[in-house]
Amino acid sequence: MITGKNQIGYKQSAEGAKKYKTANPVTNSDNPTVFYEATQLEIDEACSLAAHAFSTYSKLPGVKRASFLNAIADEIEALGSDLITMYMQESGLPEGRAQGERGRMLGQLRMFAELVKNDTWRLPLLQDEGGNLKKTYIPLGPVVVFGASNFPLAFSTAGGDTASALAAGCPVIVKSHPMHAGTGEMVATAITKAAQKTAMPEGVFSNLNSSGKEVGEQLVKHKGIAAVGFTGSHHAGRALYNLAAARETPIPVFAEMGSINPVVITQQAISKRAGQIAETYTASITQGVGQFCTNPGLIITVKSEETTHFIEILAKHLEATPGGCMLHTRIQEGYEKSKNEIKAQESVSLKVVGSSSKPNHTTAALAVVDGTSFIANKTLHKEVFGPFSMVVLAEDKNELLNIINSLEGQLTATIIAEDSETIALQDITLALQSKVGRIIYNGVPTGVAVVDGMTHGGPYPASTDSRFTAVGNHSIMRWVRPFSFQDFPTALLPDYLK
Amino acid sequence: MITGKNQIGYKQSAEGAKKYKTANPVTNSDNPTVFYEATQLEIDEACSLAAHAFSTYSKLPGVKRASFLNAIADEIEALGSDLITMYMQESGLPEGRAQGERGRMLGQLRMFAELVKNDTWRLPLLQDEGGNLKKTYIPLGPVVVFGASNFPLAFSTAGGDTASALAAGCPVIVKSHPMHAGTGEMVATAITKAAQKTAMPEGVFSNLNSSGKEVGEQLVKHKGIAAVGFTGSHHAGRALYNLAAARETPIPVFAEMGSINPVVITQQAISKRAGQIAETYTASITQGVGQFCTNPGLIITVKSEETTHFIEILAKHLEATPGGCMLHTRIQEGYEKSKNEIKAQESVSLKVVGSSSKPNHTTAALAVVDGTSFIANKTLHKEVFGPFSMVVLAEDKNELLNIINSLEGQLTATIIAEDSETIALQDITLALQSKVGRIIYNGVPTGVAVVDGMTHGGPYPASTDSRFTAVGNHSIMRWVRPFSFQDFPTALLPDYLK
Repeated sequence: MITGKNQIGYKQSAEGAKKYKTANPVTNSDNPTVFYEATQLEIDEACSLAAHAFSTYSKLPGVKRASFLNAIADEIEALGSDLITMYMQESGLPEGRAQGERGRMLGQLRMFAELVKNDTWRLPLLQDEGGNLKKTYIPLGPVVVFGASNFPLAFSTAGGDTASALAAGCPVIVKSHPMHAGTGEMVATAITKAAQKTAMPEGVFSNLNSSGKEVGEQLVKHKGIAAVGFTGSHHAGRALYNLAAARETPIPVFAEMGSINPVVITQQAISKRAGQIAETYTASITQGVGQFCTNPGLIITVKSEETTHFIEILAKHLEATPGGCMLHTRIQEGYEKSKNEIKAQESVSLKVVGSSSKPNHTTAALAVVDGTSFIANKTLHKEVFGPFSMVVLAEDKNELLNIINSLEGQLTATIIAEDSETIALQDITLALQSKVGRIIYNGVPTGVAVVDGMTHGGPYPASTDSRFTAVGNHSIMRWVRPFSFQDFPTALLPDYLK
Repeated sequence: MITGKNQIGYKQSAEGAKKYKTANPVTNSDNPTVFYEATQLEIDEACSLAAHAFSTYSKLPGVKRASFLNAIADEIEALGSDLITMYMQESGLPEGRAQGERGRMLGQLRMFAELVKNDTWRLPLLQDEGGNLKKTYIPLGPVVVFGASNFPLAFSTAGGDTASALAAGCPVIVKSHPMHAGTGEMVATAITKAAQKTAMPEGVFSNLNSSGKEVGEQLVKHKGIAAVGFTGSHHAGRALYNLAAARETPIPVFAEMGSINPVVITQQAISKRAGQIAETYTASITQGVGQFCTNPGLIITVKSEETTHFIEILAKHLEATPGGCMLHTRIQEGYEKSKNEIKAQESVSLKVVGSSSKPNHTTAALAVVDGTSFIANKTLHKEVFGPFSMVVLAEDKNELLNIINSLEGQLTATIIAEDSETIALQDITLALQSKVGRIIYNGVPTGVAVVDGMTHGGPYPASTDSRFTAVGNHSIMRWVRPFSFQDFPTALLPDYLK
C-alpha cells in the first residue's frame, strides 16, 4: 500500500538517490518501506503545479473548497485501521492516542469546511455600509507545511496548518516529517483522492519526502511559495524564519516552536490540596511521555515547609508513574541530553532522575532550583522535550514576580489557586499575560481545544508571530490578506460580494 | 516655540552633539531651528519609559485611551495657524494641502478614539458562546513609528501609525523625520500636553530627533521595542525589516514602501474618451508634484493609432501643467536621478522630459516603452518618486496580461474601461488582484480614504506584510495579538470580558 514515493500533484514520483526508512521505537527497528527523498526537480515541479493550481483554486466558491475538505476527511476515515497501525508503527504511540488524534484531525477538516462553505468569513468585521469600497480577504498563495514529530496526524500532513490553508484557498505542499513518512504518505494519498473526486486543480496538494533539512530549506526559499506553517523545535523554526526573511521577497512564517509553560501555584492551594495538585500534574507532565508543546515544564511557587512537602508528593507520584516509549531514538537522546544539561547546572537538584530500562523508553524526571539561580541562568529556561518538570522556589511573592518577568515568550501559563485569593492574583495574572498566548486557571496546559476561543501561539520564541493562532478557525487568518474593490461593477465582483 | 530638543516622556532633552536643521524648499534655505539628534542614552531612556508606561497604559479601559486620543486632536487643533506655517516652511507644500492633511490627521485620531472607547473591537468576530475560553486582543508593547517625508502630518508624528498604536494600547516612540523635525516637534508637544492633561503614564509617547539612519536603527534593534510602523522608501523599509528579523527576538515591521500603481486602459475607453482620461490622469500624476505612494506611475494599454493619439494628448496636458516645488532638495535630486536612469534604458522614449527652472522645482515627465522591453528590464519596474508616469505598449491583450504578471507587488491597480466590456475584464482583474491590495475601477489611485473598506498595503515590496493595512480602523490589528483566558474567574478578567 505504501510506495515510499513523493506525491507531486496527481503523480507519484521517486527520482532521487537519497533514501531512508522510518523506525518503530517500540521494537527499536526500522520499518520496511524505503522512502525517496524529493529532488530539486521534484520540488520545482510541486511548486510549479501549486502556482498553477492557485490561479483556479483561489477563485473557487467556498462551497467547493468545503466539499474538498469534507472529502479529505472521508477519504482519511476510509483508510480505517490501516492508518492507525501505520501511525503506531512509526510513533510508538498507543492505539487510543492514535484514534483520538485521528478524530481531532477529521474534526478540524470538517470545521474548516463549515467555516468556508458560505464565504462570510471573508468579510471583515469592520466594513463601511454603502461605501464605494468593498473589502474581503483573499488567499496568499501556495503554503508549505512542516508537520510535527509529536502529532503525526493532527499537526501534520492533513493537520491544522494544511486544513486552514486549503480552506483559505491556498494550495499546500507538505514537507513530510521523516519520522512518520508512511503515515504521511497514507494521508497524502487520501488527500489526493479527495482532490481528484472533487475535481480540484492538480497541484492543490503535494507531499514531499525528506530525511534532513535540505528539502524544507529549498521549499522555503522557493519563489513560488507564499507562506510557511511549521510546528517543531525552536532551532528549526528559527532557521526557516531566517531563510524566509532573507528572501528577495520575504514571506510570512508561522512557526509554533514549543514552550516550557509555567505553572504558578499559590501557598494556599499547596496547603489545601497538595496531593490533588501533585496527582493532576503528574498526569499532565507524563501524558504522551511528556511530548507535548504545552507540557508543564516549570512550576513556580514560594519556598515553605508545605512546598517541600508538595515536592515530595509530586516526586513520589512521578516515580510511581510507569514510563513510556518516546517517539524516536533521536527524541529520546535529545531528552536525555537536555535533562543532563539541566542537571549539570549549579543549584539544580534532580529529585526524580528518570530511568531508561528499554531502548527509547523513559520515565519522568523532576528538578528543583531556587529562584535566584533560575533567573540568572538562561540554560534553565530551555525546553526539555519529554516528561520533565522543574520546580522553581521563590523567596517570596516579589521574587515570584521576578521569576515570571525573567521568562521568554510561552504558549501557556497556568495559575493554581484558591478562589478566595483571586483578587491578590491580579499582578501575577498580568505578569503572566505579558509572556503567553493563553492563561489557564486551576487546570492543566496540556489539551488544546479546537475552538474559536483558543489561542495556540504566543510571544517569541513560543511562535514567530504572536499575532496569530495555530489552532481554531482564526488560524485561517495566517494565509489571507485584505483586499479592497473600489467603485467596482457588480459583474466583476466575486459572488459573495455582489 | 520650537526648541529643537527631543521629547522623552514629559521631559525635553538635548544631550547630543549632532545637530541639524530643516530646509525650506521654496526659498531653498535652511529654517532657523537647530535640532539635537538623540543620543544612545536618550534612546534608552525613551525605551525604558515606554516599557514602564506599557505596564499601565496597556491595561487602561478603552474610554481612557479614547480621551487621550481626542485630547491629542484638540491640542493639535489648538496649535492653529502656527502649525500650518511650520508645515509649509518645512515641506514647501501649499496651505490648502496643509489644512487638508491636518484634517485627515485629526479625523484619524478621533476615529480611533471612537473605535476603542468601548473595547468591543477587542472581541474577535469568531467566539465560542458559553465556552470556557474567552478570547481577546491585547497590545504587543512599545511601537516605533517612522513618519513619511511626503505626509508631515497624516503619516507622521500623530499620523495613522501613531494613532492606531496608541489606540491599541501601545506606547509610541516616533523617530522624527529629518525633513520636518519642526512640524514633528510641534505635534509631539501637543501629544505630550494631551498625555499630561489626561493623566497618561509618562513614556506613553516620545519623539526622537534624527538626521540619518542611526537613531532609527538603534530603536528597531532595542530590546524594549515590540513592533515597528514605517512609511517610506523600499530601501529604508527593507533595511529596517532585516534588522528586526535578525534580532534575538524578532519583531513585526509593517513597512509601506510605495508602488508604481499600474493603470490598465482598454482600447474602448481610449477610443471613446481619450481626452477625459488624459485630463484626469494628468491631474493624478501631478497632484502634490507626484509625491504620493499611490501615484499612477505605469499606464498599460495596447498599441494602436488611438493609443498613439492618447499619448499625444496626455503629453500635451502634462506639458501644460505648471510644475511645483518638491519636498526637499534630496527628493528632487532623487527624482531626477531615477528619471534619468529610466531615460537611459534602451527602447524608452521620454515624451515629456520635464524641466527644473527654479531650485527644487520640477514639471511632469512621461516615458513610453514597449511591453517586451518592459518585461525584460527590471529597472523599468522601479518607482520614480515624483510627477512621472510611463506608458507601456502591449502588442495585444495577451502581452498586456504578461506585463501585469511581470509586476512586483503594488499598493493599487486601476482599470479604465467602458461598462459594456466588463465581462471581458475578468482575467485582467484577476491578474491585477494577485499583485495589489486595492483595485479601482474608472477612477484614480491617488486619494486613500480613511474608511474601514480601505486596504492600504499590498504584496511585497508594496509592504513587508500584505496581511495588514496601514489606513483605516483595521490598521490597529498590526499592534495586537490574540489572548485566551481559560476557566478564568470573573474577578480576574478585564471589565469588557466580564
